Amino acid sequence: MCRLAAYLGTEIKLFRFLQEPEHSLIKQSWAPKEMQDGTLNADGYGVAWLSDDNIPSLYKNVLPIWSDTNLDSLGRSLSSQLWLANVRGATPGQGISEANTQPFVKDELIFTHNGCIKPFDKGIKAKLLNELSNDIQAGINGDSDSLYLFALLQQHTLNQSTIPDAIIAMMSSIKSVCNKDVAALLNLLIYDGEMLYACRHALNSACPSLYYSIGSDNVRIASEPLTINDEWVTFSEHSLISFNSSGVIENYSL
Amino acid sequence: MCRLAAYLGTEIKLFRFLQEPEHSLIKQSWAPKEMQDGTLNADGYGVAWLSDDNIPSLYKNVLPIWSDTNLDSLGRSLSSQLWLANVRGATPGQGISEANTQPFVKDELIFTHNGCIKPFDKGIKAKLLNELSNDIQAGINGDSDSLYLFALLQQHTLNQSTIPDAIIAMMSSIKSVCNKDVAALLNLLIYDGEMLYACRHALNSACPSLYYSIGSDNVRIASEPLTINDEWVTFSEHSLISFNSSGVIENYSL
Amino acid sequence: MCRLAAYLGTEIKLFRFLQEPEHSLIKQSWAPKEMQDGTLNADGYGVAWLSDDNIPSLYKNVLPIWSDTNLDSLGRSLSSQLWLANVRGATPGQGISEANTQPFVKDELIFTHNGCIKPFDKGIKAKLLNELSNDIQAGINGDSDSLYLFALLQQHTLNQSTIPDAIIAMMSSIKSVCNKDVAALLNLLIYDGEMLYACRHALNSACPSLYYSIGSDNVRIASEPLTINDEWVTFSEHSLISFNSSGVIENYSL
Amino acid sequence: MCRLAAYLGTEIKLFRFLQEPEHSLIKQSWAPKEMQDGTLNADGYGVAWLSDDNIPSLYKNVLPIWSDTNLDSLGRSLSSQLWLANVRGATPGQGISEANTQPFVKDELIFTHNGCIKPFDKGIKAKLLNELSNDIQAGINGDSDSLYLFALLQQHTLNQSTIPDAIIAMMSSIKSVCNKDVAALLNLLIYDGEMLYACRHALNSACPSLYYSIGSDNVRIASEPLTINDEWVTFSEHSLISFNSSGVIENYSL
Repeated sequence: MCRLAAYLGTEIKLFRFLQEPEHSLIKQSWAPKEMQDGTLNADGYGVAWLSDDNIPSLYKNVLPIWSDTNLDSLGRSLSSQLWLANVRGATPGQGISEANTQPFVKDELIFTHNGCIKPFDKGIKAKLLNELSNDIQAGINGDSDSLYLFALLQQHTLNQSTIPDAIIAMMSSIKSVCNKDVAALLNLLIYDGEMLYACRHALNSACPSLYYSIGSDNVRIASEPLTINDEWVTFSEHSLISFNSSGVIENYSL
Repeated sequence: MCRLAAYLGTEIKLFRFLQEPEHSLIKQSWAPKEMQDGTLNADGYGVAWLSDDNIPSLYKNVLPIWSDTNLDSLGRSLSSQLWLANVRGATPGQGISEANTQPFVKDELIFTHNGCIKPFDKGIKAKLLNELSNDIQAGINGDSDSLYLFALLQQHTLNQSTIPDAIIAMMSSIKSVCNKDVAALLNLLIYDGEMLYACRHALNSACPSLYYSIGSDNVRIASEPLTINDEWVTFSEHSLISFNSSGVIENYSL
Repeated sequence: MCRLAAYLGTEIKLFRFLQEPEHSLIKQSWAPKEMQDGTLNADGYGVAWLSDDNIPSLYKNVLPIWSDTNLDSLGRSLSSQLWLANVRGATPGQGISEANTQPFVKDELIFTHNGCIKPFDKGIKAKLLNELSNDIQAGINGDSDSLYLFALLQQHTLNQSTIPDAIIAMMSSIKSVCNKDVAALLNLLIYDGEMLYACRHALNSACPSLYYSIGSDNVRIASEPLTINDEWVTFSEHSLISFNSSGVIENYSL
Repeated sequence: MCRLAAYLGTEIKLFRFLQEPEHSLIKQSWAPKEMQDGTLNADGYGVAWLSDDNIPSLYKNVLPIWSDTNLDSLGRSLSSQLWLANVRGATPGQGISEANTQPFVKDELIFTHNGCIKPFDKGIKAKLLNELSNDIQAGINGDSDSLYLFALLQQHTLNQSTIPDAIIAMMSSIKSVCNKDVAALLNLLIYDGEMLYACRHALNSACPSLYYSIGSDNVRIASEPLTINDEWVTFSEHSLISFNSSGVIENYSL
């Protein structure tokens, strides 16, 4: 499992997104409250944002987030209108490496996943590879289920005209590949250069938790509410929502 | 590029293989003498050996070998009849990660590669993936050319009855995939549980250097002679040699 | 806080000490049961042992112990009659670095500490430095309370003829330095080339947990019982015990 | 040895300081041209800057600078009017750790050193500790000569009213401690919240190289000229210069 969060709105410093909230991702790395699997998210973390010239940018570290001595300085110096972050609780057998550490970026797409495909053995991997062109397979640079899911999304964006359509097609591919013995937990956060998409979904399992909060000039999404005093709305199970910085744009069923 | 070395013979401590020689792999990490490409091998290193119960064992570190403070202690405490090691000079664009750090192990096979496929872009990767079953593709956990070569070897061992035949078939696959614009430097060291195989080979390029030295109770192979006073024999270009601990068993042309 | 363990007896492989026990230090890194402070020991770990020629040897990693991919191979290949290990839960403000990762070695002494000095601020540090010769201060290569305690022990071994006497003098120094507002948790494991010394002690606080278990050919000591079926004896608070591989040699009060 | 550089002037992105120049510190990490000692600076690196609210900020990594995958993103997102950076070539025996990685920060002081004290053994360390109050000793969190030099500077700032005076007093302390058998290479860059100070100095050795270049809206200082087309002025041996963003303020002899 992992814990993830996103922000879209008026430009803010990283620390306001990542460090300041009472139940920040840092707190959720060692004391998550709503994890189905595992008790910790200490296997690295990553943050994605947009540079001034709107280039998706990434910072990753394979150490537990609480032990990164660079984070204070980065927190007060980096600023952006968009933030995505993930603290990782690696599924045993999936290596702790920069390649496996989320978020992932490909061109304008930023992607992060909370969940797992379980078991993620060679049988499932081989079936997922069947859904991918060699060109997209060649972009997989690690061995985590999340990397394969991101590849699958890229594959479906080639044939679908919108991100929600690609996500819906992707989930259908996964369903065709996963029989009843495979649990797939499939919460995703995606930014495509314009909008933020978040889905809460699972196959053969309960869905991981997911919330959003609409502020005066921003939207936040997180696995667990980041703050105590703001209103956090739980996502319906098997739902996909698109957001801009003003709030919810559209609701989809998965 | 990288520098690699192997030892097969009477059981010795790691430090006698890795640290003691005048022109050890540690020396070759910061002062190699015969590299075609690059000037350094500072992008991590790895050592493979057999445990007492003959299980292929691995130690890897993504830091330069000279900065690994564990190495002195391991050098005087680990012993084996078989050693393979690699100090890595990563090709730009191929990540520095444990997954990409050599040697690689799969079941009883131990594998290490010195060289590169250049350019190792999506086009070549996609063609190499074409040669692989999904099952073997699913075992690739990083993004280096060496990992793809190891996967290709595994693929060919399924249809060939000997390691030399698999290597020959593998080189032929690579030739079919690499047109004239692709340089492939293909020095390999392989141990299969019984014998050590080493080849010096390249396509559209000169071959990297490779030497062996027959001792009284052992065989050593290395990219550059490890010692000054021993006799080191250079491999012929495009040759493959099998060794046991007594010396050369058989010579093949590639 | 940390969790620590030691073994003295017939030579065994590392994995029998570190990985095999039901409530191994690996388990205690993410699910300790008797910690007073903190909930995790994910800030690196270290193992000390004797090489064949009785040289104190060390392996350290700043990553959580569960994510060290080298450990399986080392576990089945390293063997010794002596093992000390520590999984670290760093006190906030004390850096996560190899220098701060325990155990520590100086000549024939091997040392590991479970506990803390709280607060470990400049005032306390300065007072502890007052107790040390410049020569011993110059050996402190990090910033943890455990490093200062090890330096203090070294200082007292210069004037005391036995390790127990040095430990008793050291505890008295600490008492003179720590007023009522400073809590000092002072469980130590020490090997001096011949015997194993373990103490359970604290000032202005309850003592951390500590146990030992006498086997047919060995002694084990641990912060929490490593196994379910063996008998584990709790140390009395403020006690120091010396062991050889047959069992308890002598009991001291602190 | 190390290579270091600084920038003071109109606010610029990090990449313009660190990555863009033809002979950037990245290039100087693997291909320095004017090193007296060593051939590489691959033992970690660090960058210091001022945040928007003028807080000295730090980013460090113990890997070679060329292998830091975060650097592209940080390069285009961090901006400041002040930059100091150091690529480290560790003196053997001085650990590769975040604590030893430069620059160092203490309150408003930013400090980086190029050179070494050789040999940096316990005798010298003990003599340097003699010059330090316990309070300042307690701030040393690693074991490099550079950390001891920074401590010594802090000590002298307590009794001197200006940074140049403190540097001059510090150099005199070092001279009293180092007899003829000790070579001290003592190039320093210091920022105190207002001005940049750079010195080129050595005892019992030639001075390491050091240059500055005055631009239209900035000053740059570097161990080796960063660019080909700008004019770079070599520092006189045993000189100290203070700069503001317009150029040289004052020259001192050491």
